[in-house]
Amino acid sequence: MKLSETFIKTLREAPKDEIAKNGALLSRAGYIHKEMAGVYDFLPLGLMVLEKIKAVIREELNKIGGQEVMLSALQNPELWEKTGRFSDQEVDIWFKTELSSGGVVGLAPTHEEPITNLMKTYISSYKDLPLAVYQFQTKFRNEKRAKSGILRGREFLMKDMYSFHATEEDLDRYYAEVEKAYDRIYARLGLTETYKTFASGGIFAKYSHEYQTFLPVGEDTIYYNSDKSVVVNKEVFNEEVLKDLGVENEAFTETAAAEVGNIFKLKYKYSEPLGLQFNDENNEQKTVYMGCYGIGVSRVMGVIAEKFADEKGLCWPETVAPFKAQLIGIGEKGTAEAEKFYATHEETVLFDDRNLRPGEKFADAELMGMPYRIVISDKTLAEGAAEVTARKTGESKMITIDKLAEIL
Amino acid sequence: MKLSETFIKTLREAPKDEIAKNGALLSRAGYIHKEMAGVYDFLPLGLMVLEKIKAVIREELNKIGGQEVMLSALQNPELWEKTGRFSDQEVDIWFKTELSSGGVVGLAPTHEEPITNLMKTYISSYKDLPLAVYQFQTKFRNEKRAKSGILRGREFLMKDMYSFHATEEDLDRYYAEVEKAYDRIYARLGLTETYKTFASGGIFAKYSHEYQTFLPVGEDTIYYNSDKSVVVNKEVFNEEVLKDLGVENEAFTETAAAEVGNIFKLKYKYSEPLGLQFNDENNEQKTVYMGCYGIGVSRVMGVIAEKFADEKGLCWPETVAPFKAQLIGIGEKGTAEAEKFYATHEETVLFDDRNLRPGEKFADAELMGMPYRIVISDKTLAEGAAEVTARKTGESKMITIDKLAEIL
Repeated sequence: MKLSETFIKTLREAPKDEIAKNGALLSRAGYIHKEMAGVYDFLPLGLMVLEKIKAVIREELNKIGGQEVMLSALQNPELWEKTGRFSDQEVDIWFKTELSSGGVVGLAPTHEEPITNLMKTYISSYKDLPLAVYQFQTKFRNEKRAKSGILRGREFLMKDMYSFHATEEDLDRYYAEVEKAYDRIYARLGLTETYKTFASGGIFAKYSHEYQTFLPVGEDTIYYNSDKSVVVNKEVFNEEVLKDLGVENEAFTETAAAEVGNIFKLKYKYSEPLGLQFNDENNEQKTVYMGCYGIGVSRVMGVIAEKFADEKGLCWPETVAPFKAQLIGIGEKGTAEAEKFYATHEETVLFDDRNLRPGEKFADAELMGMPYRIVISDKTLAEGAAEVTARKTGESKMITIDKLAEIL
Repeated sequence: MKLSETFIKTLREAPKDEIAKNGALLSRAGYIHKEMAGVYDFLPLGLMVLEKIKAVIREELNKIGGQEVMLSALQNPELWEKTGRFSDQEVDIWFKTELSSGGVVGLAPTHEEPITNLMKTYISSYKDLPLAVYQFQTKFRNEKRAKSGILRGREFLMKDMYSFHATEEDLDRYYAEVEKAYDRIYARLGLTETYKTFASGGIFAKYSHEYQTFLPVGEDTIYYNSDKSVVVNKEVFNEEVLKDLGVENEAFTETAAAEVGNIFKLKYKYSEPLGLQFNDENNEQKTVYMGCYGIGVSRVMGVIAEKFADEKGLCWPETVAPFKAQLIGIGEKGTAEAEKFYATHEETVLFDDRNLRPGEKFADAELMGMPYRIVISDKTLAEGAAEVTARKTGESKMITIDKLAEIL
């Protein structure tokens, strides 16, 4: 992509009321635009990051048999009244609105009720099980406070998967498969400091599992033992829990973290009130076991932005960067050579062909955070080369033009 | 994809209250699931059709310089009050809701106001113009009646593009480019009977342009002349308009049609009240000219479903079909050979490997509507071939196994 052909500009100032680093940097670098607290637009580069994150998640979920769907945002209260969750006392983050033809509808903050109900059409026998469906869908949550940039949105992109099983053992088996898929997802996204964390299971179960990424500005506090094999959310960090986990004598360290996913064994929680049943091998009616598995896609983008940024700007891991490299040509010959290189790498290179001084382009490249900066100038061409600088380490090396494609 | 590995089943009955053919067939064939009137879920095959339509539109809009973004659904009333459009008298299909922190917000039925406002950050000089941005985004419209399946949704997927220009001439030039792109889009989607139609311009202009597809159940009535070079919506089909168009002496034929797109020259309509200005070459402040260009993506899917369906079921054009062919193996040898063929064509073939009688599979293939049905049986293998039947014409021919891939 040529920067001159996009409307994107870097901005000197973030929106005045933007106190979160991720929101401020992503705004200044032209990735997002703030509409209101907790409500953001995604500009071309921001949308590319979201799509790259989605692609990684989609690939890993397809590997474990996930089938992609897209459910509606508007919700029929009837379904949610069956589980008691349409009540604002029970779920305090509903946005509700009225149909002009009469009646209240909600904007889905999550999708357990509609997916459970939908499956009543498609699950009738043990032969239909197990199955797992997922979606990338915009969720709406009426948060009282939304000051964390895209870490906590009133409207945000979420991947939610739901699985359906004939037995608890099969739910356990699949749950373990999802855990492995989640590990692969976070590793691929560059979030290696992400740990499965014991957290409150609420009314579902004793524990649920959150995936927490170490992050100084994270909203959660977690405790981890020396080899990080056991990580516990502060909300359930007590003697009883440590004993249950068999780590009552270990030393734990406290740190701040951001939740980047969560998984629940729902069991009968929704299938029972909504009447999702199947006939087993003996033709007996049984209730379906369910699991659910979330990843906040836009939130993950915010966590990545926040975690790897430095004082100069964003610093994307290669898997999610909109482009592998930002290309700058200096001088007539350097620019011509850059143009030539760009012509065969339009998909992977962001070419800063704007009529600006090199210094401004360097600063923008650092703010925008592509993994590599490639500079071609008279000086580098004297060596038949380009200067390639890694955004993360700041290290530069000269790479001959004919080998330049290898870094992409 | 193997049908046995998806949760999709064809259904004998459509939802009881589903009176639209597109809604009934798409439900029965397992493409969509109805949540409420005008609110649908997209199941795996339905989502694939949407993605194929999006891919065609995206490709053609990228060709004319469109830049993809994704704006929020939640809307700040402040922006819309500047144009008077937050009023329910002015725009009667708003869904509105309340923030828990106080204040009303709307769910975007369209995005002129936020995109115009956003561009105030990015357009300041004539050098920033022209530019065009588009998105695929879920729109919310509080329709009183929603009985047309996915043709008219309360929540639906729309592509909306907005263009920004320094002069009216440049808007006209780009508008003509979009017209050509739209012609290519509808042709590629198989909607060849789609015509640019003069319609009321409302308060924007004398006329706007709709794209209308001939469709017996369409909600619009249009008039076309003998060579279909002039098509006029009934709402503006009068002597004055025909005279303006220079066709007052031609004969016109009436037909029913469905709107599948519309384009407007907005000119200053939104840029003026929202203050979107630029500095021209002489450093004078000027107001930006705008155009907007919509295509209802889920609506287009419904129109295609409705238009090409017959008494046996759906019949997708090749460009939007989830799979090119539905594959059926009969008998042990036929099934083994089908399995072998499928192994190298997982992306383009829907393999009906379910344990069902051939007759049921034939009926489902017709209901689900892939362009080709491929049957491999002892009988076809005796000729070293498969029987390939075109869904549209019902014509069958024998194609030898080694040439089978050519139809895909």
